Amino acid sequence: MTEQMYRVALASRPTGAPGPENFSYEAAEMPPPGDDEVLVRVHYMSLDPYMRGRMDDGASYAAPVPVGGTMEGGAVGQVIASNSPHFKPGDFAFGMFGWATHAVQPANMMRKLDPAQAPITTALGVLGMPGFTGWYGLTALGKPKAGETLVVAAATGPVGSMVGQVAKQAGLRVVGIAGGPDKCKLAVEKFGFDACLDHRAYDTAKALRQDLSTACPDGIDIYFENVGGKVLEAVMPLMNNFGRIPICGMISWYNAGGLGAGASGEGLTAPAIWRTILVKFLSVNGFIISNHFDQYPAFLNQVAPKLASGDIAYLEDIAEGLENAPAAFMSMLTGGNTGKQIVKVI
Amino acid sequence: MTEQMYRVALASRPTGAPGPENFSYEAAEMPPPGDDEVLVRVHYMSLDPYMRGRMDDGASYAAPVPVGGTMEGGAVGQVIASNSPHFKPGDFAFGMFGWATHAVQPANMMRKLDPAQAPITTALGVLGMPGFTGWYGLTALGKPKAGETLVVAAATGPVGSMVGQVAKQAGLRVVGIAGGPDKCKLAVEKFGFDACLDHRAYDTAKALRQDLSTACPDGIDIYFENVGGKVLEAVMPLMNNFGRIPICGMISWYNAGGLGAGASGEGLTAPAIWRTILVKFLSVNGFIISNHFDQYPAFLNQVAPKLASGDIAYLEDIAEGLENAPAAFMSMLTGGNTGKQIVKVI
Repeated sequence: MTEQMYRVALASRPTGAPGPENFSYEAAEMPPPGDDEVLVRVHYMSLDPYMRGRMDDGASYAAPVPVGGTMEGGAVGQVIASNSPHFKPGDFAFGMFGWATHAVQPANMMRKLDPAQAPITTALGVLGMPGFTGWYGLTALGKPKAGETLVVAAATGPVGSMVGQVAKQAGLRVVGIAGGPDKCKLAVEKFGFDACLDHRAYDTAKALRQDLSTACPDGIDIYFENVGGKVLEAVMPLMNNFGRIPICGMISWYNAGGLGAGASGEGLTAPAIWRTILVKFLSVNGFIISNHFDQYPAFLNQVAPKLASGDIAYLEDIAEGLENAPAAFMSMLTGGNTGKQIVKVI
Repeated sequence: MTEQMYRVALASRPTGAPGPENFSYEAAEMPPPGDDEVLVRVHYMSLDPYMRGRMDDGASYAAPVPVGGTMEGGAVGQVIASNSPHFKPGDFAFGMFGWATHAVQPANMMRKLDPAQAPITTALGVLGMPGFTGWYGLTALGKPKAGETLVVAAATGPVGSMVGQVAKQAGLRVVGIAGGPDKCKLAVEKFGFDACLDHRAYDTAKALRQDLSTACPDGIDIYFENVGGKVLEAVMPLMNNFGRIPICGMISWYNAGGLGAGASGEGLTAPAIWRTILVKFLSVNGFIISNHFDQYPAFLNQVAPKLASGDIAYLEDIAEGLENAPAAFMSMLTGGNTGKQIVKVI
């Protein structure tokens, strides 16, 4: 079984925003599954902001992708060969199959999917790591209370839209921030946000802050952080005493090279951040969802029925073809997508 | 009863480090106690870093001292006239009497002291707000576990020495940072720190970090933050995953005017702080002890017996005379004191 497959490799490490030259779309030999391993034909793969971090060499919570290695990422596909009793050909599964048409993975690193229960793409977004990230970060770290006010950016993305909907259903005032009037409309009409501001309409954090303070007349109790930069700078002075800031990402700073110089939000200094945490008695918590998989069944139990009943909405943006994954990824990093960015591989 | 008293007023707001011109030592008319109020002759007053913040006009967790107003602060003294059934002349009490020889306070804002139980000065330090701050911040927010490593600066101060001793008794490796070799020796010999570094011996955060990493071979699990600046910059990259940072102050940044420019620790950027919180899954919590007075009895119950038995040590630095309070305060802000800074007023 030495058939051909295709993959996208990391051709070189980017400095600043990644470009096409950092990726290489290439043929490769299809690996045979070893003991307890499974060979999968990938149908859909996920594109997520965290992948930008894996392209760098710096210390992070995960090892970087080696230059020449296949770009990492979650995907869903169908088993075509299995050396595990837990999977048989034809089964659908989620796994870290990477940016590739095919992948071999140990069976215990994969999760079987029931396509009759929910479309398999949802395992990449609303019912996958992004949705779980939003749900866990909000409930465990944001500790929402009815009557409070929450702000989240990337409001129509798979994390932000989950955060907003769960918070709204918990009785909070929910204010989103998104890029462009169309996304803002979606946030309010599709996801039920009370208000949504278009960050592109503001040149400065100060201007954004002014409208944000109007949209949040009682201040901000929870800022669910996934963007950093200008939004963070706008939000910090509006935080209420005893506010909570769960941090799952900071996409606006991912491309900033040395992280700071030239990035938006440059009006923020370290002492100003530290001082706000002190004088407002904030609780700021960084997290990555992979440390909390023990909560995944609880998440599915709560959210999957709401998805089926329509009480939780979701939005997907599906690019066609593995060879177009780099372009879709680069576009996503600057907000070019609307909803969870997925690539249809087959 | 229109006798004369003395007080130190805020003459003007400082820009940067306060100078003698910002204070005014002056005579005032002694106020008579009203209903349920008590007139106290102050014996000892406390000098604390937070008072620097009260001299500024910016938003903080407490209103600024008005220009012309008496400098605020905790003190201990003896009742000389009382309109409350709860106090009689001769009683000793703690209260927010300010920088003054005498003060009138509502009885319900004062706490009676038993001078037979502990010296009344301890109500300003080891058994007062600073000691309570260290104990609460460490136990409630630092969540110490045996075998972990803790770092705290101002190690011989009333907060740092409490943090270090409680952490050591909980089975942690405890590393202090202090200004000068004498304080470092005290931290180890009097307070039982495993090691103590003299921050004055390091020109850069990087150099401090290098020796700190040697002193903390397993990384840092808890950084009890009371200084900010160069120490914070040195500490951040050494934090372990799931580390905790309780923040009760940032004395090195208090005099920085706009808070940031020119302060030590200027190598720290906001994105770098935010990124470390994210990728190390840190929990950063600001607090002020006055929000947690419900825990004060628990603190006293635990710590007062240890003080009596000698299991908790403490150190006081007593300046003589109210008129010398401004000089002692300015000196304290740059580490000129050794141990809890107190002013003997009577």
